[in-house]
Amino acid sequence: MSSYWGEKIKISIFGESHGKGIGVVIDNLPAGEKIDMDRVLMHMARRAPGKDKTATPRLEKDIPSIMSGMLNNTTTGTPLCAVIENTNTKSGDYGNLLDKPRPGHGDYPGFVRYHGYNDIRGGGHFSGRLTAPLVFAGSICRQILYRRGIVISSHIASIGDIKDNMFDPINIPTALSHRLNTETFPLINKDKEGVMREYIDIARMKQDSVGGIIECCATGIEPGLGNPMFGGVENLISSIVFGIPAIKGIEFGTGFDLTKMYGSQANDPYTYDDKGNVITTSNNNGGILGGITTGMPILFRTAVKPTPSISSTQKTIDLSTKSNTELEIHGRHDPCIVPRATAVVESALALALINL
Amino acid sequence: MSSYWGEKIKISIFGESHGKGIGVVIDNLPAGEKIDMDRVLMHMARRAPGKDKTATPRLEKDIPSIMSGMLNNTTTGTPLCAVIENTNTKSGDYGNLLDKPRPGHGDYPGFVRYHGYNDIRGGGHFSGRLTAPLVFAGSICRQILYRRGIVISSHIASIGDIKDNMFDPINIPTALSHRLNTETFPLINKDKEGVMREYIDIARMKQDSVGGIIECCATGIEPGLGNPMFGGVENLISSIVFGIPAIKGIEFGTGFDLTKMYGSQANDPYTYDDKGNVITTSNNNGGILGGITTGMPILFRTAVKPTPSISSTQKTIDLSTKSNTELEIHGRHDPCIVPRATAVVESALALALINL
Amino acid sequence: MSSYWGEKIKISIFGESHGKGIGVVIDNLPAGEKIDMDRVLMHMARRAPGKDKTATPRLEKDIPSIMSGMLNNTTTGTPLCAVIENTNTKSGDYGNLLDKPRPGHGDYPGFVRYHGYNDIRGGGHFSGRLTAPLVFAGSICRQILYRRGIVISSHIASIGDIKDNMFDPINIPTALSHRLNTETFPLINKDKEGVMREYIDIARMKQDSVGGIIECCATGIEPGLGNPMFGGVENLISSIVFGIPAIKGIEFGTGFDLTKMYGSQANDPYTYDDKGNVITTSNNNGGILGGITTGMPILFRTAVKPTPSISSTQKTIDLSTKSNTELEIHGRHDPCIVPRATAVVESALALALINL
Amino acid sequence: MSSYWGEKIKISIFGESHGKGIGVVIDNLPAGEKIDMDRVLMHMARRAPGKDKTATPRLEKDIPSIMSGMLNNTTTGTPLCAVIENTNTKSGDYGNLLDKPRPGHGDYPGFVRYHGYNDIRGGGHFSGRLTAPLVFAGSICRQILYRRGIVISSHIASIGDIKDNMFDPINIPTALSHRLNTETFPLINKDKEGVMREYIDIARMKQDSVGGIIECCATGIEPGLGNPMFGGVENLISSIVFGIPAIKGIEFGTGFDLTKMYGSQANDPYTYDDKGNVITTSNNNGGILGGITTGMPILFRTAVKPTPSISSTQKTIDLSTKSNTELEIHGRHDPCIVPRATAVVESALALALINL
Repeated sequence: MSSYWGEKIKISIFGESHGKGIGVVIDNLPAGEKIDMDRVLMHMARRAPGKDKTATPRLEKDIPSIMSGMLNNTTTGTPLCAVIENTNTKSGDYGNLLDKPRPGHGDYPGFVRYHGYNDIRGGGHFSGRLTAPLVFAGSICRQILYRRGIVISSHIASIGDIKDNMFDPINIPTALSHRLNTETFPLINKDKEGVMREYIDIARMKQDSVGGIIECCATGIEPGLGNPMFGGVENLISSIVFGIPAIKGIEFGTGFDLTKMYGSQANDPYTYDDKGNVITTSNNNGGILGGITTGMPILFRTAVKPTPSISSTQKTIDLSTKSNTELEIHGRHDPCIVPRATAVVESALALALINL
Repeated sequence: MSSYWGEKIKISIFGESHGKGIGVVIDNLPAGEKIDMDRVLMHMARRAPGKDKTATPRLEKDIPSIMSGMLNNTTTGTPLCAVIENTNTKSGDYGNLLDKPRPGHGDYPGFVRYHGYNDIRGGGHFSGRLTAPLVFAGSICRQILYRRGIVISSHIASIGDIKDNMFDPINIPTALSHRLNTETFPLINKDKEGVMREYIDIARMKQDSVGGIIECCATGIEPGLGNPMFGGVENLISSIVFGIPAIKGIEFGTGFDLTKMYGSQANDPYTYDDKGNVITTSNNNGGILGGITTGMPILFRTAVKPTPSISSTQKTIDLSTKSNTELEIHGRHDPCIVPRATAVVESALALALINL
Repeated sequence: MSSYWGEKIKISIFGESHGKGIGVVIDNLPAGEKIDMDRVLMHMARRAPGKDKTATPRLEKDIPSIMSGMLNNTTTGTPLCAVIENTNTKSGDYGNLLDKPRPGHGDYPGFVRYHGYNDIRGGGHFSGRLTAPLVFAGSICRQILYRRGIVISSHIASIGDIKDNMFDPINIPTALSHRLNTETFPLINKDKEGVMREYIDIARMKQDSVGGIIECCATGIEPGLGNPMFGGVENLISSIVFGIPAIKGIEFGTGFDLTKMYGSQANDPYTYDDKGNVITTSNNNGGILGGITTGMPILFRTAVKPTPSISSTQKTIDLSTKSNTELEIHGRHDPCIVPRATAVVESALALALINL
Repeated sequence: MSSYWGEKIKISIFGESHGKGIGVVIDNLPAGEKIDMDRVLMHMARRAPGKDKTATPRLEKDIPSIMSGMLNNTTTGTPLCAVIENTNTKSGDYGNLLDKPRPGHGDYPGFVRYHGYNDIRGGGHFSGRLTAPLVFAGSICRQILYRRGIVISSHIASIGDIKDNMFDPINIPTALSHRLNTETFPLINKDKEGVMREYIDIARMKQDSVGGIIECCATGIEPGLGNPMFGGVENLISSIVFGIPAIKGIEFGTGFDLTKMYGSQANDPYTYDDKGNVITTSNNNGGILGGITTGMPILFRTAVKPTPSISSTQKTIDLSTKSNTELEIHGRHDPCIVPRATAVVESALALALINL
């Protein structure tokens, strides 16, 4: 496994930030699925930089060109490949990174892994830009899931110490998910937007960056999906979510806070609802027990570290002279990628769920 | 993927808690590795119940019988299979679970997933007992890794709100790891043992249970291992760790707390140490950047929820009558599985690392 | 991939000929499938040695012990493990093989592959005995397939130059398949049995061995199963069939003889039959086009080389002295494994088809 | 598995014959491998149509555009994607195929598999054109193998009944392989070219087609590569070779003719050569025993059926009216694809071997 992922529906992501193009092959999609390309582009736009002052001023078009697998906006069932050409790249910005690895980035381990042959420009294959094809693939899949009653959404749970309200784990209205799906700064409590943006802005002024937490959910999941042990839904989701750059943690349901509860509080009691469906009256397990779905909303939070590319001077090494040195990164960088990453995390969840 | 895991070295775990036996097949181990079976049994004993009053009073022998893959305590290179017979089972204890799923367990989703045909006795294939073959496999692998300079250990980072000291992320002495490896209640600060045990005991008195956090590390890892995106070390580790029952979260390095830091604090500066090795002066990324090892210790924490099997009365449903009901679980259950789970989490890490 | 195989339903085979036991884990079987164990044992008996004078005089019991995955002879859906203990082994017979690799066997490449650590006794993991768990697994699967209308059978298409009649590729009666399924020397034209057995007997007298061809089919397959390119049914079947020792070739439909035909003869014309089903009036493609089933019988032939273990003196090397030498193999060997291999090839097909 | 293949080095092939483009992603190539693109294009030209009168008069450029994974003609180690745009397509030619499936093609099973949504134009994803990216990928890999001493070549073993000389299985000169590698009609005995071309020409005149056998080899293979049972080299090679359209059989070494030999003839005796290397004095097993390489040349033959697209009238069905009908295929078709397929089979072998 590497830049390829999946069992039933596989994706193979390729490209480097400043190469000719990036893209994805999606293998084994169901045939005959009508795809609304405007909606795919909407989610890609949510991820794309340059929307507003939380993001980098780069203007990328990121219009995917469909090479195969679709005819009349309908999946053919054979591999779907989309290519996004890289047009707006300024490789000069990264010249000194060849020798001076950026702290917090994949530069140094990538240099060792590839014996110095990897394309370092713009982060190369490690660039956050590689999440564009992931969002493309996920946005195809979430439409297929939506047709089967599954709704995916996420919001910015926190930026630094500033918290949004959390999802109600047993009742996530579809209307709320729909609203979040159209926003570039998705929050349950929109009153928090001002203070969060201000916090990000202060970091930018200081040539610094901040991180945050994304809470993501899926509703409409039937019970009994997934497999025991290593084939569990948590394993599946985390195996793709950690493929998103800057993700350093994931927790399902109540997650780490479960460790402070008693079993009598943590256990989710079963009951029949008035339609005769089995539900739980709490959802501390995030819709997953024994690796298998319970039918309650799937719910997880994931930690996004502060953008490692910052403009202030940092200590690093010079691999050519084998000595300690300092680094100033120029170029165009996000002080906070959390808002853009919401579309990426949702896409990862869509890809995980379509593999069930 | 299911009860099978791995790319280069694969494991296939089988068994049900109250069936004839449980075990594991390990495929593609290197040939010619001498295995110290006493040390394997030591780690299995750390996981086994019945050691002291934090654990269930069941006495299991859990002696693995090697069916294949070893000759004169040396790996042959062909699949190694070990079987552990189930001897001390009291299936009567679980009779009413067939209809009344235990909250917090895999009973109900398993019932749906397997259309009621799964072996519910003792949790069946979802039982924590299935971690015994996982520890067996991991304990083989950690010896092979140790021969290559890699040392794995873990400790109880917290029980409820009570915290142990944490690992120093840039310097984990081998002597400390060796000590932790031999303990059934591994703590960095042994002064915390009393208060933690007391806390667990109170839960037991109340017919309740508690959870905690395990911090796990590996030292001696060379840089440049792993793959970008979905083939990252974090993806690999979490894909197996979530196969352990009761795990609900994982974070690498500083993890969720990274989201409260600035990039200038979170980034780990590079420097050459006095031997000319590249190191970082902090290790907020837990030894992994861009999915690839940096050469610093691999470090993660994982959340263990409170044991769902508790003796106090719980609300649940009766699947046969389709009505709400209550459940009292008898039988032998751990008020806290965190101490026993340390050996399991270490084994999962060993299996992940040997796949690099 | 190694001694493990499969996508949806996976098998992991373990064991060495003279180790403690051999067996198989079958992962992801559908739950709730009633299994007739007598029928499983019948197919295992067809493969087992010692039936009559075509086979080795060893008497093995080969009774599989089910460790997990079945309750009341019904699959639970979780991994099914069966272990067959090795009881009747005479390891002394193989002492000199440690240094003198047998021509035509896996001894020498296995020695290099495992640096001399593999268990050479009885062929170790390369022994034909390892097909016993394969037949066990296949015999479970063919019952599940049979319940869905799929019938698998095979016959001895040839021994040396002596040919049986071939299957009619567009019409294979279920009654014929049922008859073949119960025979230890399955032939369409039973008049050929005498001359074939005589031919085998002559080889035995000469301390030599002979090979043959097995023709295998499956009827009741619906059209549209399989995937294009590498996910084709031919790829799938051959990926498991070549896992059977002594198999050196496979051809589908008319196979190699297709290369001598014109396209106008080779193409299978479509027509609607009187029930409105699409059929082809010939079946040169063996029920597979573009990797995908056509609905016609799946048909292939596979080449079984002469048993490499022969008693006459052979030229080989001495790995300890690095010199040329001669080898006389004692012990119990089949002059012809083709009859026993029919049950194995059918099992491989069953495992391939259940993965569709 | 589907249009994706491989364990260590994976390929994901995409595209439809008359879509926007076709291509391949190659994942996990070693970094720092210098690639001679002229040599890649030479092999692609051997596969391309329009060279001479054995092939279709279509003129395709088939120039691959490298999207990622190479910098200065050197592999970066991250996924290498190449796209070939489809320019010269005449979709009108295939209009009536939507309803009338061509005998011998994937049209009908593809229609069922994809519920009629697959792109039927030019055979869509089932087109022989999809072998162009396979040759691209294989031609990259064979250069990497060549740098490690491994030489791959093939020749037309037969067209219809007309046979070329066969490779000497124990001694295949590198000079011969080099000559074959540069030819579009590769033969060991060039005297056979005239009669073979004449035979093909006669088929063309009759609006018919012919097939043949390709013999393929690799020299310079070290012993001990591969795995037992399902991970064998024969399994691996056949799992990719059957992904080539029109392949209906494969045999290793002496293959089906082994079934007519005695064990004393079939077994390959070991001896030390004058350099102290272990060799066999015959190579009936095609360099593979027990699934593992012996160090002797890997040798296999594969059956290519006559091109199913022929101009003469054929019986088929009309899926729209559900009635029997006839079909006349217009368009540009090869009377014999065997010469072009040699480059494809070699590429498949290169991909298989690089996975060892």
